[in-house]
Amino acid sequence: MSTNALLMDYYELTMANSYFQQGRADEWGVFDYYFRRIPDNGGYAVFAGLAQFIEFVETLRFDDDDIAFLRKQHSFSEDFLTYLRNFRFRGDIYAFPEGSVIFPKEPIVTVRAPLIDCQILETYLLLTLNHQSLIATKAARICSQAQNKPVFEFGSRRAHGADAALYGARAAYIGGVTASANTEAGKVLGLPVVGTMAHSYVQSYDSEFEAFAAYAKDYPDNTILLVDTYNTLHSGIPNAIRVHKEILAPNGHALKGIRIDSGDLAYLSLEARRLLDEAGLTETNITASNSLDEYLIKDLNSQGAAIDAFGVGERLITAKSDPVFGGVYKIVTLERNGENIAKIKISENVAKTTTPGFKQVYRLYDKAGMSIADLITLRDEVIDTNKPYLLFHPEYTWKHKRIKHFTAKPLLQPVLVDGQRVRDIDTLETCRTRAANDLKTLWKEVKRLKNPHIYYVDLSKPLWNLKQSLIQQYTED
Amino acid sequence: MSTNALLMDYYELTMANSYFQQGRADEWGVFDYYFRRIPDNGGYAVFAGLAQFIEFVETLRFDDDDIAFLRKQHSFSEDFLTYLRNFRFRGDIYAFPEGSVIFPKEPIVTVRAPLIDCQILETYLLLTLNHQSLIATKAARICSQAQNKPVFEFGSRRAHGADAALYGARAAYIGGVTASANTEAGKVLGLPVVGTMAHSYVQSYDSEFEAFAAYAKDYPDNTILLVDTYNTLHSGIPNAIRVHKEILAPNGHALKGIRIDSGDLAYLSLEARRLLDEAGLTETNITASNSLDEYLIKDLNSQGAAIDAFGVGERLITAKSDPVFGGVYKIVTLERNGENIAKIKISENVAKTTTPGFKQVYRLYDKAGMSIADLITLRDEVIDTNKPYLLFHPEYTWKHKRIKHFTAKPLLQPVLVDGQRVRDIDTLETCRTRAANDLKTLWKEVKRLKNPHIYYVDLSKPLWNLKQSLIQQYTED
Repeated sequence: MSTNALLMDYYELTMANSYFQQGRADEWGVFDYYFRRIPDNGGYAVFAGLAQFIEFVETLRFDDDDIAFLRKQHSFSEDFLTYLRNFRFRGDIYAFPEGSVIFPKEPIVTVRAPLIDCQILETYLLLTLNHQSLIATKAARICSQAQNKPVFEFGSRRAHGADAALYGARAAYIGGVTASANTEAGKVLGLPVVGTMAHSYVQSYDSEFEAFAAYAKDYPDNTILLVDTYNTLHSGIPNAIRVHKEILAPNGHALKGIRIDSGDLAYLSLEARRLLDEAGLTETNITASNSLDEYLIKDLNSQGAAIDAFGVGERLITAKSDPVFGGVYKIVTLERNGENIAKIKISENVAKTTTPGFKQVYRLYDKAGMSIADLITLRDEVIDTNKPYLLFHPEYTWKHKRIKHFTAKPLLQPVLVDGQRVRDIDTLETCRTRAANDLKTLWKEVKRLKNPHIYYVDLSKPLWNLKQSLIQQYTED
Repeated sequence: MSTNALLMDYYELTMANSYFQQGRADEWGVFDYYFRRIPDNGGYAVFAGLAQFIEFVETLRFDDDDIAFLRKQHSFSEDFLTYLRNFRFRGDIYAFPEGSVIFPKEPIVTVRAPLIDCQILETYLLLTLNHQSLIATKAARICSQAQNKPVFEFGSRRAHGADAALYGARAAYIGGVTASANTEAGKVLGLPVVGTMAHSYVQSYDSEFEAFAAYAKDYPDNTILLVDTYNTLHSGIPNAIRVHKEILAPNGHALKGIRIDSGDLAYLSLEARRLLDEAGLTETNITASNSLDEYLIKDLNSQGAAIDAFGVGERLITAKSDPVFGGVYKIVTLERNGENIAKIKISENVAKTTTPGFKQVYRLYDKAGMSIADLITLRDEVIDTNKPYLLFHPEYTWKHKRIKHFTAKPLLQPVLVDGQRVRDIDTLETCRTRAANDLKTLWKEVKRLKNPHIYYVDLSKPLWNLKQSLIQQYTED
């Protein structure tokens, strides 16, 4: 992770300097991070990137070079530059646990801090959470179609730079992939790493058999051979079987797997399976790769393809079908002279009007533990789960539903309070397990690839009233 | 830039270790980097990322932590780990100058080095060059529609991580944007940076006028006001004009600009222009932003929108419409016992069959300096520009054209020889100017957004003969 303090939109600094100049350095605000639309028109997203964002916040310092660069812009006061030079984050951060499934319009991270500090964190918060949530969500979609077979992340070469490869692998792991080809992700983040050979290895020998034989001698316990360099069925598979018989089996080893990276994967995998089985290699796995995504994997499975594991590259690491996670970060409260002033941004598009105030989000579960809805409330509201609760649609308010026998779990948890960590950062395994468990609490109608059921995200009555009163106030002006 | 040595596909290491185990540590190879398809079905691409790739190669070292991690995998010999620990790149790298326009199937970078080293560089080469060429190409497309008006890169918050924001801004600058909002790109790379205010700034004041007034006092020389927080025409513009009249003009300043970030940009910009002009603010600029790309900019211009500058965010920094630059890296020659063995990878898809051998690429220009074609040749071929030259289509060979009065510029230039730098890394300005100049040498038919003319990339007769002989050889087997 880069620790580039100035990796922020320049306007964060011009605004911050202006707040400072206007004597507002001690004015605090509350900002929410949320998103409006699920990529690929899916039914859910998976929250990722929190660990890197918190690490950024805790280590954010502006060094002399940063200050010197800013001074050269002739836009910032020396007092403000001194403020930056001494900067330590001293606010509060509340966040959904990483790996949670998340839905549009609910605050996933809430930052409460001096206005200046809120602005200074904005760009990094957005780019980190947007990026990793994008990839974790895409990975979850892809894995949902793999029918519990392993999915490997192979996309580094098409990632948008080194961070995208490393943290994309991390997010993909949270979203459900089994391992990554990115070695650095193994070293730095502890991901399982996988990889065997490319076509260049096979080509570098005088014959395919020689290449396979050399590899089998060097990796007898993990011989996975790429069989499509010349001709999968007429050359690759026969040579792989020959290597098993002549080199591996005589020494007590077995051909672990083959990989097919081109051609008609459904047909080739079935033929490969037949040839391997006929040779007695019923335990040899078949991995398929080549521009796979959730739709192609679903299609391969529907054709009964004999594929045991999927290698997924560019379409996962770039979220190719919809490569933008549109998370935003909006002011919801201003704290001035001890008073909390709820803030709203009105839009002609009702869905884009912000939800004001310092808030909490509860996930409501039925008796069986399935998720019913997420409920956004004012921060200090209490949900009495012993009584029925009336949920209603925040726009079409006549649509409502009275629930009983439910539990309510608060999702925005304090991570930093007064700049101090109050909770351990979850391990990657914890985040990955949370994503898997959260997905199990969603009805399958919410999880289908196309036209999913829209999960309920509702406002409590007090919050809805606050929002309406602010809308009234602005539209009467 | 991360200097993560292990940011590579694990198979690079398993292959490299196997080469080492097989006694092939001193066998050299030649690999080509090229791409097959232009993003967005465009007519050209812009090459970027070379400086970062060369920096990676020159500084690539495996430290004790890297070695310890690899040792834990129980797949690598100690001799090989020692090789890695002492690794210094000692091969040659030839590359197109950064910022060049590039076309499918021509080698843009050629690496000649020990096979092991060729593999070890692969992933980083691909991810760096693919990422930056993707964004530079998208930026060039976007700028091509802006009719010489400035385009600002505003996308950090939607970039795929910190590197994607930083080097995406760099690539966008090479592709033609005027400036970036990414402050770090200013500090580290020298890009011009821009930025003024977000909606949160306006909302943090009791009224829009107060916000504008505060900003004008703090930045009287650079007052650019975001006018769409409440209502662009009925609130934002009138308040901006009032700030000009009451605060800026009395002190000898003027309202520099306004920015519109939502709504119907064509209509609002024309109305804004009218209101500003009526107030005498004919010099006040109008910047527009909000999910812009080349198509929307073209559309705005075709409607006569009164926009002086464009802010472009997520659709540039992620190349949203086509976020994968499919560059590949293939072995083309093996050097064994002093012999050069040209290598080919046959594919049933003719276009995917590799072009073998150690090669050069010439760009051929007509007398007026316009690009006629790129010609791929064997490395040591000489093009005699005093004689007519017969170009022919490499697949449809009956399509041919005899050219005369042309010049030929070799494009693959040595950057590293025997691991030593033999050429300065171009400055960012040089790369940006090169892209602009190269684009001027392309016919407009090659540059149009849709259905562009396909630029000629041909093979010389000797190279074509070599390729055919290898194809014959493999298909006869």
